[in-house]
Amino acid sequence: MNNTNGETKLIVAPSDTDGDMLYATKFWAGDPFIFLQQNGKRTIVLTDLEMGRGKRTAKVDEFVSFNQLESEVQGNSKQAPPFEKVVAHFLRKRGVKRATVPANFALGYARELAKDNVDLEMAEGLFWPSRGAKTDEELKLIGRALRMTETGLKRAMEVLKASKPKGKKLMWSGKPLTSELLRAEIDTAILRAGGFAANTIVAGGDQACDPHERGHGLLYANSLIILDIFPRDAKTGYWGDMTRTVVRGKASEAQRKLWQTVKDGQELALREIKDGVDGMAIHKAIQALFKKRGYPTEVRNGVNVGFFHGTGHGLGLDIHEYPRLQKVVLKERQVVTVEPGLYYPGLGGVRIEDVVVVTKPGCKILSKFPKQLEL
Amino acid sequence: MNNTNGETKLIVAPSDTDGDMLYATKFWAGDPFIFLQQNGKRTIVLTDLEMGRGKRTAKVDEFVSFNQLESEVQGNSKQAPPFEKVVAHFLRKRGVKRATVPANFALGYARELAKDNVDLEMAEGLFWPSRGAKTDEELKLIGRALRMTETGLKRAMEVLKASKPKGKKLMWSGKPLTSELLRAEIDTAILRAGGFAANTIVAGGDQACDPHERGHGLLYANSLIILDIFPRDAKTGYWGDMTRTVVRGKASEAQRKLWQTVKDGQELALREIKDGVDGMAIHKAIQALFKKRGYPTEVRNGVNVGFFHGTGHGLGLDIHEYPRLQKVVLKERQVVTVEPGLYYPGLGGVRIEDVVVVTKPGCKILSKFPKQLEL
Repeated sequence: MNNTNGETKLIVAPSDTDGDMLYATKFWAGDPFIFLQQNGKRTIVLTDLEMGRGKRTAKVDEFVSFNQLESEVQGNSKQAPPFEKVVAHFLRKRGVKRATVPANFALGYARELAKDNVDLEMAEGLFWPSRGAKTDEELKLIGRALRMTETGLKRAMEVLKASKPKGKKLMWSGKPLTSELLRAEIDTAILRAGGFAANTIVAGGDQACDPHERGHGLLYANSLIILDIFPRDAKTGYWGDMTRTVVRGKASEAQRKLWQTVKDGQELALREIKDGVDGMAIHKAIQALFKKRGYPTEVRNGVNVGFFHGTGHGLGLDIHEYPRLQKVVLKERQVVTVEPGLYYPGLGGVRIEDVVVVTKPGCKILSKFPKQLEL
Repeated sequence: MNNTNGETKLIVAPSDTDGDMLYATKFWAGDPFIFLQQNGKRTIVLTDLEMGRGKRTAKVDEFVSFNQLESEVQGNSKQAPPFEKVVAHFLRKRGVKRATVPANFALGYARELAKDNVDLEMAEGLFWPSRGAKTDEELKLIGRALRMTETGLKRAMEVLKASKPKGKKLMWSGKPLTSELLRAEIDTAILRAGGFAANTIVAGGDQACDPHERGHGLLYANSLIILDIFPRDAKTGYWGDMTRTVVRGKASEAQRKLWQTVKDGQELALREIKDGVDGMAIHKAIQALFKKRGYPTEVRNGVNVGFFHGTGHGLGLDIHEYPRLQKVVLKERQVVTVEPGLYYPGLGGVRIEDVVVVTKPGCKILSKFPKQLEL
């Protein structure tokens, strides 16, 4: 955990949705539980319901019964106490007067602890600094999640290739191909590979000009289709995240030029990324390249067009984690996505995304999937 | 929203994982954004990346550009400001000196707002009191999620019935049937029905004695198998949650008695639930019935056995929401699960779960799926 033994650390959160908690415990739970690191000893407090599973799977030093603590607080009262009173009781028993908590620590718990004058410090930067630099083991697990992502992409390409243009529509398995149908094919393939994918983007035409639009309705021949796939490994909790943009049928000159420009922008980033480089400089260089090629980033009729999102984000136990590529000087062993895009209603959207680990001399691309415009 | 117009309400959270935020906006987002309700007007602050999608889908009165606010804070600095400084800037611009926030409001934001002497009050009980009483529309949406759940259960039964005992193993599609394989079949069926299911429980034998164990490895003939399925409707965000316990092959006398006892316990609850009844009394009545039938709840060799979890929990935009059945006096229009269980290593586990809405005279069961022990 890379921390001095002296620092007391406290998290109260569900690990299913809190990367710091899953990182600390390797234990999955959908409801909040308590993690305390004190004098180098790592303790979690679990209900009876979670205790057996916790003891088998959590990577901590000590297990404490929530039910026991709860009944101590409850005493002779008929009513079970609120959760935060049990948290406070546990910290009193452990003599905690000062602890470092994550920035997302719930105000409800903080107010209860304030009554006991527990001094909560907020971590400067990352709660677990080691999360910023991926270990070899973590790189392997991110690789596992990327293999699941590629399984999804592969399935998407299979279905698109097997679909037949009929007028403007694409027909597949006797039905018009829709975003929903293709998403289900992708997500099913990922599921069978051991991941889960909740919001896979399959967005064609102008829908893709909203980078977070999942896509709905008919997919069309000769039209740009963005496939942005970001599954989570159901076993380890690490995320994959990759995007390809394709045309089923024939790409127009304008579509081809847009696609090639985004690809060139991504290649610029992949050349520049290395330990010590300013991410914002890379982001601006991509925007400048795009502008030079005739693709400015601006507002047209109240709508953002061009390249109006970040170049990339950290990836690990959270899908969006530290660092945002364009907000830092990059450091060795950071894992980030590299995903420039261009979006112009009427023409459509293109985004191409891979995942890299920053190294001293450059970066290593962890994702593996061909880039091909026309299918 | 059932609130007085005078109260200022503030949420800063991602709606994908925060039920209060999704309830307030009907807008899905994986990253935190700002929601402010002031003088009855509901405003959200979105980045350029989310703005187009937000304007199309969010049910609010006003949209404010995060990027604009951010550049006002940034001024001539080269570095974009931290998120919480933008939150504080927005509240200053709106003249907010006092706001009600949810108990899970992040301490990091609260500390920043404290510098401006913004007085944050925490909601007593539910942040949106109306979430406690489901509208007819919400009951319909919960019904939709339950139909997805039933689709998963139906697929599970099909696969189990089609599997053939070979010695102790179950063979299906030429392979030994495992928890992983059956889970993938269930989750795939749900996915195609428009839901996503992340942690479906398919747990046989002693694995099922840990109620939150997902299950892994071989499934066996003549052995109790718990199927606990809780998908989320990908469109509306409402959850379904149902459990059935089955034996593929022949149930022993002991298995049958355990199963029948749990079923009787559930029926007891379904008879007793109505507006004004104390949930804890129902919970205790089930435990008493179980004990009378020879199934005490206790600790044996350091392991919890019997009925050691709650009888039920609220269900809606969160999978576990207010109220815990056993912690309240039930009220009309609350939607809760009813899911007693019994767990004895060596014999196995049984849990049977349905979803009900509390009414004045009793309750209405919203989930529909036969209960059958042997397949």
